[in-house]
Amino acid sequence: MKINRLCIIGVGLIGGSLARSLKRAGACGEIVGFGRNSENLETAVRLGVIDRYEDDMAEAVKGVDIVVLAVPVGSMQKMFELLQPHVTEQMVITDVGSTKGSVIAAAQTVFGAIPANLVPGHPIAGTEKSGVEAALDDLYQDRRVILTPVEQTAPDALVAVRSMWEAAGAVVEEMGVEHHDEVLAATSHLPHVLAFALVDALAKLDEKAEVFRYAAGGFRDFTRIASSDPTMWTDICMANDKAIAHALQHFSATLQELSEAIANDDREKMFTIFQRAKVARDGFCEALNYAKE
Amino acid sequence: MKINRLCIIGVGLIGGSLARSLKRAGACGEIVGFGRNSENLETAVRLGVIDRYEDDMAEAVKGVDIVVLAVPVGSMQKMFELLQPHVTEQMVITDVGSTKGSVIAAAQTVFGAIPANLVPGHPIAGTEKSGVEAALDDLYQDRRVILTPVEQTAPDALVAVRSMWEAAGAVVEEMGVEHHDEVLAATSHLPHVLAFALVDALAKLDEKAEVFRYAAGGFRDFTRIASSDPTMWTDICMANDKAIAHALQHFSATLQELSEAIANDDREKMFTIFQRAKVARDGFCEALNYAKE
Repeated sequence: MKINRLCIIGVGLIGGSLARSLKRAGACGEIVGFGRNSENLETAVRLGVIDRYEDDMAEAVKGVDIVVLAVPVGSMQKMFELLQPHVTEQMVITDVGSTKGSVIAAAQTVFGAIPANLVPGHPIAGTEKSGVEAALDDLYQDRRVILTPVEQTAPDALVAVRSMWEAAGAVVEEMGVEHHDEVLAATSHLPHVLAFALVDALAKLDEKAEVFRYAAGGFRDFTRIASSDPTMWTDICMANDKAIAHALQHFSATLQELSEAIANDDREKMFTIFQRAKVARDGFCEALNYAKE
Repeated sequence: MKINRLCIIGVGLIGGSLARSLKRAGACGEIVGFGRNSENLETAVRLGVIDRYEDDMAEAVKGVDIVVLAVPVGSMQKMFELLQPHVTEQMVITDVGSTKGSVIAAAQTVFGAIPANLVPGHPIAGTEKSGVEAALDDLYQDRRVILTPVEQTAPDALVAVRSMWEAAGAVVEEMGVEHHDEVLAATSHLPHVLAFALVDALAKLDEKAEVFRYAAGGFRDFTRIASSDPTMWTDICMANDKAIAHALQHFSATLQELSEAIANDDREKMFTIFQRAKVARDGFCEALNYAKE
């Protein structure tokens, strides 16, 4: 099922990589960009990521089969507002937000009900980089994309979005909205929160941040995600606050257990936790066919 | 100052890489290995990492200028015990332990006092890999090595160990014992504890560890150090329990602050912490001339 015309709202790393992937697969006719930053959209055209861009939402979505909202979760509601007057029945709408409950709530607010042609989605891919210059035509290759259709979602719309992501190389799965938000809180949002907290805690230890001079490769890897965009992560934490709080609570219980083992020189307890973690980590790396290095 | 003969006790990644680096630099005559595992020592000879090995400590350290203890911190005391009857006045002793207070305490126990020719040291290098097969001749190139001489340390011994590490390509610094243990607790031991705790917490979420299926690249990087050797890390946490407890306390205060900001939807507070962390993290990567990728 070829897409005749696609509109990407927010042509950054995620939206731009989707455009590149669909073009590479020959799965899409024209790709139109829309966004707040014309300079960025011009770059996207120059790089061949999109075919053209429009300053006006009405023009941007005219005659498109699918609209992809690839903006930070904090901007979804505003984009729904701009989009709302121009939505047609044939137009399928999807998004790439890292939290799904908040996007669905924003749609409900703007449209009065969850539109049948809205298919909430989330590609599990990306780096700490951002911007259309970093867009890749294989970012989604063999990566998972989670779709969280709701009761109201039209089966045809779901098929269209699934096909789009499969054409981009992704493995598509469906999941309940709440479950998605809990899983992502655990595997993505919580690690980011911990990395940010660790770096901030160490930076506060001394003014000159002398401690960082003695950091080795493990620390660099561990804290890489603390170089992520602060605005985006503020948005995500606002949008998924409850699931993140729940994940934090769960983590804190294990950390407390481990802290007590260290305080009590409880060698056996420490070893059990470290060993269990190593087995789990080595196991999931193997399962995901990731290089351990 | 060329080393005529060197003995490495524990020929794994760290000891083996020192041997390879000194050989590459032409800074050492014969290198003798000693360890509990003969098969490993045979491998080390076959790979050209060491020239020969001895099953007997007396033979291993006969006529050597420097003895390097490159065993896990939990085995230091036992190695000091084996070494003690064979120590001569000309023989310089150093170690590579990740914690320095515990190594010095072990020496004091075995020797009755801290020997003047003992120079406690710690190369800030390594990976989550281990074993002599992983040894590299440039592991220490431009990496820091911290020496923690004490009042009793003989200046000549300090010079000898400093020269050895400089020949291996390292940048050598001196630091107080307690300060070393605090800095390393913050930049290395704490991140390992957090990574182990996170993976264990997530593994406990569900039996099949379904959550790991939805982990992206950031998670893989963040948890890489949770693949480290559990025995080694149990030893380190036993050896540096107080400094780690202190670092954990410091971290927990920041995490608590951030948790409250998330619970209270305090956008400004979250952003401030994330932004401060990003600036610190980008800054130290630049300062260390690390690639951010």
